[in-house]
Amino acid sequence: MTNAILASTSTLHGQGYLEYLLPVIEELYWNTSEIIFIPFARPGGITHNEYTTKAAEAFQKVNKKLKGIHEYSSPVEALRNTGGIFTGGGNTFLLVSELYRNNLMLPLRESISRGAAYLGTSAGTNIGGLTMQTTNDMPIVYPPGFKTLGIVPFNINPHYLDPDNSSTHKGETRETRIREFHSINSQPVVGLREGSWLQVKDNKISLKGSLSARIFKKDKVPFEIDAETDISDLN
Amino acid sequence: MTNAILASTSTLHGQGYLEYLLPVIEELYWNTSEIIFIPFARPGGITHNEYTTKAAEAFQKVNKKLKGIHEYSSPVEALRNTGGIFTGGGNTFLLVSELYRNNLMLPLRESISRGAAYLGTSAGTNIGGLTMQTTNDMPIVYPPGFKTLGIVPFNINPHYLDPDNSSTHKGETRETRIREFHSINSQPVVGLREGSWLQVKDNKISLKGSLSARIFKKDKVPFEIDAETDISDLN
Repeated sequence: MTNAILASTSTLHGQGYLEYLLPVIEELYWNTSEIIFIPFARPGGITHNEYTTKAAEAFQKVNKKLKGIHEYSSPVEALRNTGGIFTGGGNTFLLVSELYRNNLMLPLRESISRGAAYLGTSAGTNIGGLTMQTTNDMPIVYPPGFKTLGIVPFNINPHYLDPDNSSTHKGETRETRIREFHSINSQPVVGLREGSWLQVKDNKISLKGSLSARIFKKDKVPFEIDAETDISDLN
Repeated sequence: MTNAILASTSTLHGQGYLEYLLPVIEELYWNTSEIIFIPFARPGGITHNEYTTKAAEAFQKVNKKLKGIHEYSSPVEALRNTGGIFTGGGNTFLLVSELYRNNLMLPLRESISRGAAYLGTSAGTNIGGLTMQTTNDMPIVYPPGFKTLGIVPFNINPHYLDPDNSSTHKGETRETRIREFHSINSQPVVGLREGSWLQVKDNKISLKGSLSARIFKKDKVPFEIDAETDISDLN
């Protein structure tokens, strides 16, 4: 009875934080008013309190109360009882390290399996995949492993960026990096463009937003899927 | 008596593989004719033999013979006796994993300390820093650690890319990623643009090529250094 939204980005160009997702947030958390926020990815190194305040201000606009997981005396107990969770973006290595260090990866997984509504953006979406290995982030800290929540049976590349054919830069394109991933790993990867999100409802996984997404399978030519496509069978 | 070249990229736009570095290669390996190639980073998942052939063809142009480290019956022995080593680019996580898995990280470090001439490009340059944590690559494999050769007393970000102020993409810029690195780590980072390299000769470290490089220090405003600047004291 999973109920999750995995969004490529928190913020669209020229908009406020989470602005484009507010209707989605309202619908996702329709039957819960207090939501646990996981600020561990700490974008730009801000404190957990600063990050929680920023997210809470956005949620306030749809009358939802947000409380940082670091504010609970027993975070495991809180995850067990909550109706909703939001994991914000930042650095995926830091997020995964902190989830493991605080022994929260499994309780978080269980809470989502039980039906707690889950929203992830960017790094929070990356951990919705089988592993964090298709993150774009720098390895600023060494996590105890790369395995993540597996809300979906594949990996996700948030902030997916098409190759710039006019570029003279010789660093790898995103597509090349994902091909390298597939030289060692076998699960499919969904390249999720900014403004797109995956909706996971019970056993159905659909692409939402107005853009297409790019699907990468090992040893196959990548292809596009349109918005509203059902990708429940992608694995 | 370290003698190393750490180059941002192997290939400049519109040029052949290693073309712009050929005069540097000729000078670096002046007193050795057979050089060990480390193909472990395997760009695009090509085989060690394919990668070695590609690199050997470039080295042939300056009459240098290249032999893949995987071709030696005792790679440790080979590193102990060689006068020159070249580590090619690709995926840094894969390179570091393979160096550790084959117990070659320490022998490689020792060989370079002893005076074997070392050339790194891209991933091969990344491992010249204290840790691989300022790589741009995807974590396609889980290495046993992030510590690398420490040929220089700081970290390197190869293929350094300036922020594109016209972009509407909300993924982190390179500068933001390095700031995140410094929210947890303290060593300086040299952002090395394509076409630039560091020359390490005895105890002197200099920026070479025609471009400036960007220096990032924890809690400081990043700044530029010109080509030919001596950065031996950066640590």
